[in-house]
Amino acid sequence: MSTENSLYLEELEVGQVFTSASAQLDEGQIKEFAHSFDPQPFHLDDQAAQKTIFKGLAASGWHTAAITMRLLVEGGAPIAGGLIGAGVEVTWPAPTRPGDTLKVVTEVVAVTPSRSRPDRGIVTIRSDTLNQHDAIVQSMTSKLVVMRRASPAT
Amino acid sequence: MSTENSLYLEELEVGQVFTSASAQLDEGQIKEFAHSFDPQPFHLDDQAAQKTIFKGLAASGWHTAAITMRLLVEGGAPIAGGLIGAGVEVTWPAPTRPGDTLKVVTEVVAVTPSRSRPDRGIVTIRSDTLNQHDAIVQSMTSKLVVMRRASPAT
Repeated sequence: MSTENSLYLEELEVGQVFTSASAQLDEGQIKEFAHSFDPQPFHLDDQAAQKTIFKGLAASGWHTAAITMRLLVEGGAPIAGGLIGAGVEVTWPAPTRPGDTLKVVTEVVAVTPSRSRPDRGIVTIRSDTLNQHDAIVQSMTSKLVVMRRASPAT
Repeated sequence: MSTENSLYLEELEVGQVFTSASAQLDEGQIKEFAHSFDPQPFHLDDQAAQKTIFKGLAASGWHTAAITMRLLVEGGAPIAGGLIGAGVEVTWPAPTRPGDTLKVVTEVVAVTPSRSRPDRGIVTIRSDTLNQHDAIVQSMTSKLVVMRRASPAT
């Protein structure tokens, strides 16, 4: 996280767009994550996956979400104090496949100062995770707790 | 996943409740997941976490979500054909801590047959992940693609 470029509540505005670095994932990583957290045939075995709605090995949606989070933390959403999610909505419009290269494009969609706690607010961002063909494999809307600067920037 | 007890679309109804097995997580697992997917100080370092909104080491919400998924796959949501999520909404009302034991209580909240595809439907479930004090650490609403039985049950 490049803290020197991190943004506080008063520096965030609707329409700002951030683009993450990219991350590639391979079949081994897909199967390893699935073994640990989502042991279903379409995430573990290419042959078994052919006969399912996925028509081939696909990453767990939670794996795509976890990679998205890493890309956001590592500069894709430069928010001061880190990414603290109050809640998220996630859809997976297309499968993530072995060999895919993912990146995350994030747009600020709302900035809401807290009425009860003047030191912070809620920032809503939409983060689309794209593969190398620019297909959206995940779309996530997150409400983040973001702090105001302790002292005004000069 | 105990496939013999798995339920198809016509066997699911609003108000059905399923309870998962339980899973314990420790500090090492929290840090390992965070290193891989959510490398922020409050998920990596207890001392640094004391000074944050979490007031001590907390698991990544994505780690809680991934453990929840494993508990659902391993019998906590006995749905025929597996758990195929079209979309989810997730909130994290309380932190998951080292040493917590989690279980998931799931309720069916809607069953909607597809109008265009008579072989399937969308089932909406709410899955609350509870710690050993029965505090809700995650609440998730998921829309799942669920198939009808190929031939009527006798």
